[in-house]
Amino acid sequence: MSNVLENLQIYLKKMNQYNHVIELLMWDMETNTPKLGFEGHADALTYFSTEQFKMSTSEELSAMLDELEMPQEFETLDDMWKFIVTRMKRDLDKSKRIPADFYESYVMAKAESENAWKEAKNASDYSIFAPHLEKMIEMTRKMAEYTDPGKEIYDVLLDQYEEGMDSETMDKLFDDLKKELVPLVKRILSAKQPDSSKFKGNYDIEAQKKVQKLLLDYIGFDWDKGTVGETEHPFTMNFSSRDARITNHYYEKDALSAMFSAIHEGGHAIFEQQVNPDYDGTVAGSCCYMGIHESQSRFYENILGRNKNFWLPIYEKLGALLPQFQAISLEEFYQEINHVRNSFIRVDADEVTYCLHIIIRYEIEKAIFRDHVSVDELPDLWNAKMQEYLQITPKNDAQGILQDTHWSGGSFGYFPSYLLGSIYDGMFLDKIEEELGSIDDILKDGRIKEITKWLGEKIHQYGSTRTPKEVIKAVCGKEVSAEPLIRYFTEKYTEIYQL
Amino acid sequence: MSNVLENLQIYLKKMNQYNHVIELLMWDMETNTPKLGFEGHADALTYFSTEQFKMSTSEELSAMLDELEMPQEFETLDDMWKFIVTRMKRDLDKSKRIPADFYESYVMAKAESENAWKEAKNASDYSIFAPHLEKMIEMTRKMAEYTDPGKEIYDVLLDQYEEGMDSETMDKLFDDLKKELVPLVKRILSAKQPDSSKFKGNYDIEAQKKVQKLLLDYIGFDWDKGTVGETEHPFTMNFSSRDARITNHYYEKDALSAMFSAIHEGGHAIFEQQVNPDYDGTVAGSCCYMGIHESQSRFYENILGRNKNFWLPIYEKLGALLPQFQAISLEEFYQEINHVRNSFIRVDADEVTYCLHIIIRYEIEKAIFRDHVSVDELPDLWNAKMQEYLQITPKNDAQGILQDTHWSGGSFGYFPSYLLGSIYDGMFLDKIEEELGSIDDILKDGRIKEITKWLGEKIHQYGSTRTPKEVIKAVCGKEVSAEPLIRYFTEKYTEIYQL
Repeated sequence: MSNVLENLQIYLKKMNQYNHVIELLMWDMETNTPKLGFEGHADALTYFSTEQFKMSTSEELSAMLDELEMPQEFETLDDMWKFIVTRMKRDLDKSKRIPADFYESYVMAKAESENAWKEAKNASDYSIFAPHLEKMIEMTRKMAEYTDPGKEIYDVLLDQYEEGMDSETMDKLFDDLKKELVPLVKRILSAKQPDSSKFKGNYDIEAQKKVQKLLLDYIGFDWDKGTVGETEHPFTMNFSSRDARITNHYYEKDALSAMFSAIHEGGHAIFEQQVNPDYDGTVAGSCCYMGIHESQSRFYENILGRNKNFWLPIYEKLGALLPQFQAISLEEFYQEINHVRNSFIRVDADEVTYCLHIIIRYEIEKAIFRDHVSVDELPDLWNAKMQEYLQITPKNDAQGILQDTHWSGGSFGYFPSYLLGSIYDGMFLDKIEEELGSIDDILKDGRIKEITKWLGEKIHQYGSTRTPKEVIKAVCGKEVSAEPLIRYFTEKYTEIYQL
Repeated sequence: MSNVLENLQIYLKKMNQYNHVIELLMWDMETNTPKLGFEGHADALTYFSTEQFKMSTSEELSAMLDELEMPQEFETLDDMWKFIVTRMKRDLDKSKRIPADFYESYVMAKAESENAWKEAKNASDYSIFAPHLEKMIEMTRKMAEYTDPGKEIYDVLLDQYEEGMDSETMDKLFDDLKKELVPLVKRILSAKQPDSSKFKGNYDIEAQKKVQKLLLDYIGFDWDKGTVGETEHPFTMNFSSRDARITNHYYEKDALSAMFSAIHEGGHAIFEQQVNPDYDGTVAGSCCYMGIHESQSRFYENILGRNKNFWLPIYEKLGALLPQFQAISLEEFYQEINHVRNSFIRVDADEVTYCLHIIIRYEIEKAIFRDHVSVDELPDLWNAKMQEYLQITPKNDAQGILQDTHWSGGSFGYFPSYLLGSIYDGMFLDKIEEELGSIDDILKDGRIKEITKWLGEKIHQYGSTRTPKEVIKAVCGKEVSAEPLIRYFTEKYTEIYQL
């Protein structure tokens, strides 16, 4: 092995130790830390983040990568190291173009903006947040000009979360989808709605945890490589392919929430658990593409978890753990978990209207970064789009434009990746049915782990080494298209709602 | 502030960040880490421990401490910094006398010995462990000669865990105790024993956790400064006075175990939570004296928790959470939690025979380090002492000399601190009754938090800044004596067993 590669590996190993404890501090702050312990953890987090940042942008690292990129060295590398060197060099070059004082003021502005957003949301008063949003937009623009000079701003932002997915592709996908979904949702909403009253009740929290265990076992979560914590909002994090953890939140009045969160986060975690362990501790490991990642959580949650046959092999067990379900038929259950509602809040939305929530945000982000629409106009724009796509108008900003945290932290271009995930899912569904046979049959037979295995082989094992477009091409053999998702929605909901 | 003090503070702050993540990695490994995640955590632990060790033994640190110990600098320091500088200098000088290659071979031998002990215990075969024990004894001797040349070996070992407590003092304390306890235990064991059969049953784990919450609230555990995890063996750890955590283990067949573990570990944690927060992140903070620490956990567990009146204000609540206790009178409950049995295993022992378990270990440690008794003779010595003090002989090594992990890791001189804790408790009990009035009355009235406050003011706040003898002198105004503990045992058990 070349000397410089060996040095890089030693360097990355050390940098990874910093990453490791940064992740652990964050995990513990979400799951365990008592109120007065936060300060100590935050101090440590600041210290190790600063050290990690220094290492990831150092001249020493830069020099090693430069040397490894020289043809005579580069050719000796295997594919994984070629990927790592190229990717790290590109990211480092981008970071190096950001002036240190600008970055510092960005971090400060971001913290202030996040605080202002919390305050604004609590008071349901957009005017508190507006000046901060304006500043974040301006600084995000500036940041993109530094990292990717000469490129179209919004494409740069999209690329951050879903590499290679430009807005031209997305415009097409989202327009295709919108054209079909808006009328489909209208038809669904004017059809007869299922009766949700049977689901009201008090669900024992410990029993919900047992159901969670059942579900995670069922879909193939590997307990040797993961665990579950309890937090306000569910999330997934991972140290490596060998330690990918999820969290959940349990509501006494609502058993479905924790069930579907478990399946969703379980999907994220299974992805990470199935990444090639050789990639651990490098940029090849884990999956950094939000859309692809979300495609897996949503595949488990929606395509599988909201299929009636998913529940067939375990519905009796569910009733044994949560006796309330014994009084609910599987058909009633199926209708409720696919109950389409035009509601205000994205995170509570069903799988169909969810797409429209995202399209609204995508269109507003384009209005901001392409059409320079001012922040003052955004709440009206939001409300008009809600009315147009979902036939409802938020009564206040908290249930409208202030509902999500993303923009306050400068995460513009993130939302579309959620929807890309669903679009990819339509394509993966087609491919699985082509290769493994009918999903309904697989689920009915309790052979769901065959799907987990297929996803592992086709998608998960590659971690970050394939970009989203490369994944789609390699797995589906064609360009990404919204057609399969549209077909899935149309067929499924035509049947459920007898349209 | 002097320049060098400022530099030391910066240095300690950084060193404390390493300590912080070392603690966190260990906490997570005990409470959360999935099987395959251990390796990643262990890697990080090795990395940060090595860095921390380098910092704690560096020439840079040594030079700063030397400078601060010079009279003109030292006189400018406040008491806390005088303590920190003196203590760190002394410890660093000791560490520096250990040759690096010896230390390395010690660490390796220790790991091998701990593994051999596990194997030996599982196989109940002392011969597997004996050669490792011999090596650990030899290396411990050597280590003591390096760190404290010219001093009596066993005194050096005792001093490690309970500074200033020499074996002359301990010999007197333990002999006084043994003289009274051996006949007391004999009398108790020949008296009528309480009926334990009522306590058999299945106790809901979630209800046990609620009882734990009730007990921790009751004794004054501060949830803003701590939390509870679940592990195989209960323990307490702390990052600072602001984050002191305990763990517990819940048995379906035995509700008393987790209850008394919660009170015991709660006592350790309350101690740490009440240390002066100015000491956080330095050797002044936390309490490094095992006997004093154990005195607090045992005070809560035994002196308070095994007093009938402790339960008076909460016994009805206990019955509401664990309905089995509704069929058990408080008197029956009281008898069972003070049920004296001559049993083989130290950690399962009642508060009276526990003392004899420790005295056996203390006498064997003296036999090893003073009288050079060979490892081959130890099992017989153990069994003979068990027979003499507790009238039983272990059937095998697993329930005899192999039961505890301490010696396998070179922790010789640790056991006596458990008993010192109980001896101190007798003295603290006398003093509290003198200053606050009858403990029985305080408990009966539900004023237990007055005791927590008293312990905080008299003992906890000082952290490590007072050595054990200084604590006893300051709190009780006299030298340590076993008389109060003997009196407590005699009075309590004469009444319970109607001797």
